[in-house]
Amino acid sequence: MRIVVALGGNALLKRGEPMTHDVQRANIRVAAQALAPVAEENELVLAHGNGPQVGLLALQASAYKEVEAYPLDVLGAQTEGMIGYMIEQELGNLLPFETPLATILTMVEVDPHDPAFQNPTKFVGPVYELDEAEQLKAEKGWVFKQDGARWRRVVPSPQPKRIFQIQPIKWLLEKGAVVICTGGGGIPTMYDPARQRWLTGIEAVIDKDLASELLAIEVNADLFVIATDVRGVYLDWGKPEQRMLGWVTPEELKTHQFPAGSMGPKVQAAIQFVEQTGKRAAIGSLEEIEQIVAGTAGTNVATAIP
Amino acid sequence: MRIVVALGGNALLKRGEPMTHDVQRANIRVAAQALAPVAEENELVLAHGNGPQVGLLALQASAYKEVEAYPLDVLGAQTEGMIGYMIEQELGNLLPFETPLATILTMVEVDPHDPAFQNPTKFVGPVYELDEAEQLKAEKGWVFKQDGARWRRVVPSPQPKRIFQIQPIKWLLEKGAVVICTGGGGIPTMYDPARQRWLTGIEAVIDKDLASELLAIEVNADLFVIATDVRGVYLDWGKPEQRMLGWVTPEELKTHQFPAGSMGPKVQAAIQFVEQTGKRAAIGSLEEIEQIVAGTAGTNVATAIP
Repeated sequence: MRIVVALGGNALLKRGEPMTHDVQRANIRVAAQALAPVAEENELVLAHGNGPQVGLLALQASAYKEVEAYPLDVLGAQTEGMIGYMIEQELGNLLPFETPLATILTMVEVDPHDPAFQNPTKFVGPVYELDEAEQLKAEKGWVFKQDGARWRRVVPSPQPKRIFQIQPIKWLLEKGAVVICTGGGGIPTMYDPARQRWLTGIEAVIDKDLASELLAIEVNADLFVIATDVRGVYLDWGKPEQRMLGWVTPEELKTHQFPAGSMGPKVQAAIQFVEQTGKRAAIGSLEEIEQIVAGTAGTNVATAIP
Repeated sequence: MRIVVALGGNALLKRGEPMTHDVQRANIRVAAQALAPVAEENELVLAHGNGPQVGLLALQASAYKEVEAYPLDVLGAQTEGMIGYMIEQELGNLLPFETPLATILTMVEVDPHDPAFQNPTKFVGPVYELDEAEQLKAEKGWVFKQDGARWRRVVPSPQPKRIFQIQPIKWLLEKGAVVICTGGGGIPTMYDPARQRWLTGIEAVIDKDLASELLAIEVNADLFVIATDVRGVYLDWGKPEQRMLGWVTPEELKTHQFPAGSMGPKVQAAIQFVEQTGKRAAIGSLEEIEQIVAGTAGTNVATAIP
């Protein structure tokens, strides 16, 4: 099977853990151990989030006052290099020696008219006092929202329209390579409305589940897995009657509501993949990825329930 | 022709210029304008340096005190993402719309017994007062050398032995893609001497000219160009009688001495490429890259002088 697995950025740097290199390495090593058997038996494409990592780079860049922080698209590119490197190295160590692996820098097109640009929602970077926030707003045009008692920059989260490197990704898959790509939902780029065919980076964040879904459709994946830190999609999450969905049709899944910040985009991405392709999508724990691939763990979304 | 061009990291962030994003973008745009005609007429592989960029990331990481700075191999991976992204985007804007481009994360193997590990020579990161340096030496085992009145970390610069991603790079070239790879001389990695086939990152810096030479040999390049900010290799540089070498054989070039920090590794890389392949190498200005490819500018190293 050709499988696209989307790894949560929070699976690599967990909430509450220190954001050090050693911690991230250790988490990636655990992820690689789960993924290696899947890579040996299948054609594997790995996408990943970058929320905590791009946050760390933004904090570091803000802390160094001699040079203005680089824009978010460039920081996103940096995280694609950093995370791709660690995943490729750790996974490579567990696979047969001759297995080719490749990490492809990935840019994703967004629409300059996407309504998300009118309503930035994603927090990025450090928290500021109100006066600092006002100053940065005036200097750089950043938008701020309150985060607890202080203020934090928000950026838009537009829809992914196109993966520019899809052809190289497909070529490498055809050759049998494990491909790591579309990190952090891809680097957000758009065609400059004022200039013909002029691609430019943009300060935004693309949802990694939606970008991974587009990737899975484009590479004709047989299975799209969203690997996270919970075992599947739960109804009544956190209540005494909470229960996990096993196999479910897109129609049924659409009758439920899920939180916009966490399970919502995953469910939406899974539904869209199944509706567009007729293939299976699954949401579940990275630890259970082998069973998810086998269809015996996680929440499986499919047009026909076996 | 299949051409490997090695771009200096200093061509992208020039000495004396502020290290801002806008400055780097502008320099990369100029580089892309020079490279686009070469990419249209040839199979092009682009390697690049990362000295100023990895220096900036090290300064940013040191400035943020909450999380210990990530090791140099990871910072190198970040620069491969950052620089690769900007080059790919700017060059892509100038090439015909359907030209595939791909930036491949590149790891390079070094030998744990390389004598460079006994004699670290490459400055990286911020300058420190003596007491700070002593403390970091005790804490992290870093080696310091005096840099002016203060102290700066030095790391080894071992020889590149193998480019792990060479197969994906070649596959993409065969498909007609412009490939950007081996950034910063590649991420330095080595097999852990204590553990079979276990690849690990290492805090070192690989000379980008030597790594690009290995790349050029491995992809069977017809021409290997080292693009820098001078027009070629000069004898008696800086003296009244200075003169540029036009076409020269490896034998003749070996009879001259060049500074270890600047032209030395470029000359060595060019000589080694020509001796191993019998093909042409050239050292010259990025601005004159089209003429260099035509053999009418730069210093051209070849076994037979036309």
